[in-house]
Amino acid sequence: MIVEMITTGEEVLSGQITDTNATWISQQFVDIGITPSRRTTVGDRLEDLVSCFQERSKHADVIIVNGGLGPTSDDMSARAAALAADQPLVQFQEWVDALERKFADLARDMPASNLKQAMLPQHAEIINNPVGTACGFVMKLNRALLFFTPGVPHEMKRMMTAEIMPHIAKKMHITVSSVLKRLHCFGISEARLGAMLDRLDLPETVKLGYRAHIPTIEIKVMATGPNPELLQIHKEEAAQAVRQTIGDHLCFEDGHSMATNIQRLMIEQGFTLATAESCTGGMTLSQLVDVPGSSAYVDRGFITYTNRAKHEMLGVPEELISQHGAVSLQVARAMALGAREKSRASFALSVSGVAGPGGGSPEKPVGTVAFSMAGPDQTWSQLIHVPQWGRTAIRNISSAIMLDMLRRCLEGQPVFGNYDYARRVAQLEEHRPV
Amino acid sequence: MIVEMITTGEEVLSGQITDTNATWISQQFVDIGITPSRRTTVGDRLEDLVSCFQERSKHADVIIVNGGLGPTSDDMSARAAALAADQPLVQFQEWVDALERKFADLARDMPASNLKQAMLPQHAEIINNPVGTACGFVMKLNRALLFFTPGVPHEMKRMMTAEIMPHIAKKMHITVSSVLKRLHCFGISEARLGAMLDRLDLPETVKLGYRAHIPTIEIKVMATGPNPELLQIHKEEAAQAVRQTIGDHLCFEDGHSMATNIQRLMIEQGFTLATAESCTGGMTLSQLVDVPGSSAYVDRGFITYTNRAKHEMLGVPEELISQHGAVSLQVARAMALGAREKSRASFALSVSGVAGPGGGSPEKPVGTVAFSMAGPDQTWSQLIHVPQWGRTAIRNISSAIMLDMLRRCLEGQPVFGNYDYARRVAQLEEHRPV
Repeated sequence: MIVEMITTGEEVLSGQITDTNATWISQQFVDIGITPSRRTTVGDRLEDLVSCFQERSKHADVIIVNGGLGPTSDDMSARAAALAADQPLVQFQEWVDALERKFADLARDMPASNLKQAMLPQHAEIINNPVGTACGFVMKLNRALLFFTPGVPHEMKRMMTAEIMPHIAKKMHITVSSVLKRLHCFGISEARLGAMLDRLDLPETVKLGYRAHIPTIEIKVMATGPNPELLQIHKEEAAQAVRQTIGDHLCFEDGHSMATNIQRLMIEQGFTLATAESCTGGMTLSQLVDVPGSSAYVDRGFITYTNRAKHEMLGVPEELISQHGAVSLQVARAMALGAREKSRASFALSVSGVAGPGGGSPEKPVGTVAFSMAGPDQTWSQLIHVPQWGRTAIRNISSAIMLDMLRRCLEGQPVFGNYDYARRVAQLEEHRPV
Repeated sequence: MIVEMITTGEEVLSGQITDTNATWISQQFVDIGITPSRRTTVGDRLEDLVSCFQERSKHADVIIVNGGLGPTSDDMSARAAALAADQPLVQFQEWVDALERKFADLARDMPASNLKQAMLPQHAEIINNPVGTACGFVMKLNRALLFFTPGVPHEMKRMMTAEIMPHIAKKMHITVSSVLKRLHCFGISEARLGAMLDRLDLPETVKLGYRAHIPTIEIKVMATGPNPELLQIHKEEAAQAVRQTIGDHLCFEDGHSMATNIQRLMIEQGFTLATAESCTGGMTLSQLVDVPGSSAYVDRGFITYTNRAKHEMLGVPEELISQHGAVSLQVARAMALGAREKSRASFALSVSGVAGPGGGSPEKPVGTVAFSMAGPDQTWSQLIHVPQWGRTAIRNISSAIMLDMLRRCLEGQPVFGNYDYARRVAQLEEHRPV
């Protein structure tokens, strides 16, 4: 099956935005064993769109078209599709009704311009968009089936995942199938990971792929071939070999995230959580709260950005801060103990660091971050030099290390992990009376 | 002059990497007043490359080809170019000498594989690469001049800037330039924005573009023409007309973000800030803290996820919660007042909402969010129905509304904005003794 992609939009062609939708769409096909053979980007000019649809539909079996379904005059994918297929553009009452319901739910009048989004080529079939006003559609042109998707990333992704990919996967099931397992690790560099995994002796149906989702890396274990049962066995064999290689750096698998994995473990073990954040400014707890059901274990968070807040909210002694500095093992430890005591949560995580670009010193350069975790009967504190990849990256990696400490503890792994790109300069582990 | 781009490489087509080179190359052309008319991405298959070169060279005057100049067997741009132009591939002694000098300078022997990089179509002309082993080249095919550039970003950029763009600018006696202004608004739907701006009578040199960065929308005002001074005037005229049209929905302009704009205003006016977040879980303050220098005004945050935390950390009376519910004007107001009192900050923002998917009721469905802001002499509280686009979207829009309340207040605009896709169901404004 030959798959191509067509991206529309002046903002892509002019370099105003980078075409990350195209990257994502490609990945969906690679995941089912097909690499798209061509990607074409055209602007918002009707004749270019028409000729591109006509031309590429002679070469491909499936074409994913992205963008140009909005209500404004520069959105002309449907009109171009109708012209290319020599079909009239007609109003689909089904989508007019759907739009009217959407606006009624918001108690708003529908602007007349939105009606344009219900005008499709006569023989097109609507693809539902539960999260926006642009419906998708599919139509046949020459040898190709063209799937039209909206440019708004979350609308496009939802439509691809829920409607289009299942449709295509069903169509191609006849020949080859492929099974996939995703393992995510944290703290190993891509280069070292590649070197370690290259040495593995894997079944010949299996290919490994990597994708950096900084700060974690996804390892894709894909088995492709004619025998589905054998593929499952090969995939599991290979996944097990990968797990053994990456060891305690494995953070989560298929369909999970760091946050969902922690939520599952916390709820299973009956624990509750509080955080005390300085340089991350609430990002860590926000990531956990983004998961539905997090209220079953998340208690509260203290964002103690100033020294006074550390003292007033968490009872960190002012002398401790003046003696050791806000970014120190001692202060991070006092923050975690204070947060645990104030909240009466089972675990408290704390972080205090120099995110930069200012505020560094020779002794504590930008990227110096102190972490602590107070649990029911133990406290772990560490001071780490995170790489100086900029303020946002330092904050992201700091959040990931906080969550990794908790994940390791809940899984019974060593709480102090060895991170390739972050150097631990001090650590302290204390057992406390229960 | 018609400009097209061809990107080569399996790693781009398979979504392993995002094509940021294409974005950058597009921008170079837009800066001299030309928007590329098409971009094609093909993989590392010889016949695809040959047919793509032959086909696109019939339509464009200039084609920038990126990638496929490396020493390995999957790098085949030069071979494909030679086949497409029906020229032999010959060894260019000039580049063999250059390569030998490069390796001599590193005191290393040149691997034989690098010699491949000196094999070019017979009538090509070399383009120097001072920072790598892949030379670029230019050749004529059909109506087009094809410029071949390396895939390594810093090598490509150097070659484009130092050699190719000056060559092209000279050829076309560059007479056109363009100037750009970006305005960002929040709370207007793309459809209504389009309808409002379509009515504006703008100078003919000016084009408007839109792009949704949910939850804000960027409006691009671009003026293109031969007279740079006139363009500046036209751009400003058009930007002023857009500002008047979008009114108090304008959040920030060129080079700013919601967070940097708020930081500037808070510091100018000598204010400090605290937040009390429930459903957003720290996301709001984290966005502000991501900006360097935020410690000049950010004091602290309270993430009061549970009712007990609202009571203990902010002094919200337990009866108030049991009487009105945690998601209510009254509780949000008490959270903001409590946060302001505990922190002694000038402003405190609060939020408490039903982010879903569970926890909704007929009276307070998922998407019901209460906000409050306590300032030096006034308190504003509002209850809003945010659209049910999923937990993450509800949390993102809630954060944006919190920040928008503060932005509006600091700019002297009405604090209660009218948001197209979010309906206010209750509001309360109180003046308090200073």
